[in-house]
Amino acid sequence: MNLTKGLMDELMVHPGEPAQLSKRSTKGTKVNWLHGIGGTEARDVAKRDLADLRSELSKAQDLLYANASWSVLIVLQGLDAAGKDGTIKHVMAGANPQGSDVVSFKQPSDEELRHDYLWRTSKALPLRGRIGIFNRSHYEEVLICRVHPDLLAQEHLPSQDYGQSFWEARYEDINAFERHLVRNGTRILKFFLHISRDEQRRRFLERLDDPRKQWKFSPADIAERPFFEEYQRAYEAAITATSTSWAPWYIVPADHKYALRALVGAFVVDAIDKLHLEYPKVSDEKRAEIEQAREQLLSEGA
Amino acid sequence: MNLTKGLMDELMVHPGEPAQLSKRSTKGTKVNWLHGIGGTEARDVAKRDLADLRSELSKAQDLLYANASWSVLIVLQGLDAAGKDGTIKHVMAGANPQGSDVVSFKQPSDEELRHDYLWRTSKALPLRGRIGIFNRSHYEEVLICRVHPDLLAQEHLPSQDYGQSFWEARYEDINAFERHLVRNGTRILKFFLHISRDEQRRRFLERLDDPRKQWKFSPADIAERPFFEEYQRAYEAAITATSTSWAPWYIVPADHKYALRALVGAFVVDAIDKLHLEYPKVSDEKRAEIEQAREQLLSEGA
Repeated sequence: MNLTKGLMDELMVHPGEPAQLSKRSTKGTKVNWLHGIGGTEARDVAKRDLADLRSELSKAQDLLYANASWSVLIVLQGLDAAGKDGTIKHVMAGANPQGSDVVSFKQPSDEELRHDYLWRTSKALPLRGRIGIFNRSHYEEVLICRVHPDLLAQEHLPSQDYGQSFWEARYEDINAFERHLVRNGTRILKFFLHISRDEQRRRFLERLDDPRKQWKFSPADIAERPFFEEYQRAYEAAITATSTSWAPWYIVPADHKYALRALVGAFVVDAIDKLHLEYPKVSDEKRAEIEQAREQLLSEGA
Repeated sequence: MNLTKGLMDELMVHPGEPAQLSKRSTKGTKVNWLHGIGGTEARDVAKRDLADLRSELSKAQDLLYANASWSVLIVLQGLDAAGKDGTIKHVMAGANPQGSDVVSFKQPSDEELRHDYLWRTSKALPLRGRIGIFNRSHYEEVLICRVHPDLLAQEHLPSQDYGQSFWEARYEDINAFERHLVRNGTRILKFFLHISRDEQRRRFLERLDDPRKQWKFSPADIAERPFFEEYQRAYEAAITATSTSWAPWYIVPADHKYALRALVGAFVVDAIDKLHLEYPKVSDEKRAEIEQAREQLLSEGA
């Protein structure tokens, strides 16, 4: 698959411009490497592309580890059933588990609530040389908290005024936090998994029928469904305000899981490629040590 | 691949019996599913078996998560270059990264040294429903520390007598610690990756020639090589003393990477199978909630 400049441009939210989620397709891309094919054929092509990307990811990860100056932080955001878990499982199947860490951000603990909301985010950041994946993230602080401002009551905040300037201050703090990370060697990739209202409903219904998933159903799982439009608005505002030159957002059509996964995989590999990393040079001193080690091993006798 | 009782019996160190490492093959098993074939054919069979095992592991992991009473702890021990990293990468490629955690035990930090040696082990244990992999483990406390007892000086221990009874007390504490974990729902699988002296040398030499690995060579990498026999003795004593009915050791021949990986994968899948886990039953109450959710979703209109 060819992640062309046109395709990247189309999916990126250009800093300073509105996200315009409602005008963006959840089904496919205009500049489409699957163009002209559909159904099972498109799925097969995307799956093959993903398999190739996995082996490229494995190589890129090795280089990232060798270089050890950079880390990669992948932020996955999207509504329930948008495909975050599946993307993690299928894209990261190519990665070495010793070089990547997945962190799921769930309801904050009591200890976490007694710190500022970036505290638990900081603790979860990937080490240099590693890939960190955030399944949900600090962005929930301007998403679920914006749709349900009553959640803020438990955050022990000094101010009780949750007007427009409150949210703008949060966007500003998040942008400054991310700028600091980028300056210190974290490459941040933020993906919004863009799913349609219909497709979310279809997936919810499918889950209700799946005997391997029924046991874990809770009415809470679909409790956010009636807030679909409120979430779209919260995402529109948050993505528009936090798509920066140092950490832009990508809106990835998520109605077709296979295309979603291949696209996310391609962005990750591309981002590491663009760091132009190289294996560290072997110094003369090291070369001498290697020679000495070789001699030592060979002189042991059988 | 068929992990027969005969094969398991052969690789297990039966509690109360000596490990007898020197009498065990590093190349293959007597009861061998690769029997009668060799070279590339054996490798192809083992690779295919491993691919099958990966998809079984993915299913077993889902069940482990659903059940949520058990966790699985995989302990990988072996000399340098025995194949620990490769086993983790290739076996766990089938696992969901959100349900498994790899912890590499390296030189303890200052904070860790100021606690008892099981403190950092406890902190790294897998949650219920998850698979934890220890790349090295608390066993280093009776292995590298036994070969190099001067390391104990930094552990701030009250006693300075490191005689036989000191090591026996460590074995006893480790056994009691593991028994407690097993009683509380951790299935412990301990593997010694059994590599021959010749094969270790061959791999070291191969690494010295690999341009993608030369940059990270340090004389420390082969510093333990002259202590090969001391390590065999430390492993013999430790494995013999800590192969218990609740957490026995398995000695896996490690000279052929493909066979090693397929065997470890088979043991992990088998261990989860033997827990006879089932998806939680869907209660009448839950079934009613599911029905209600379905109606709510369907009544939304298009």
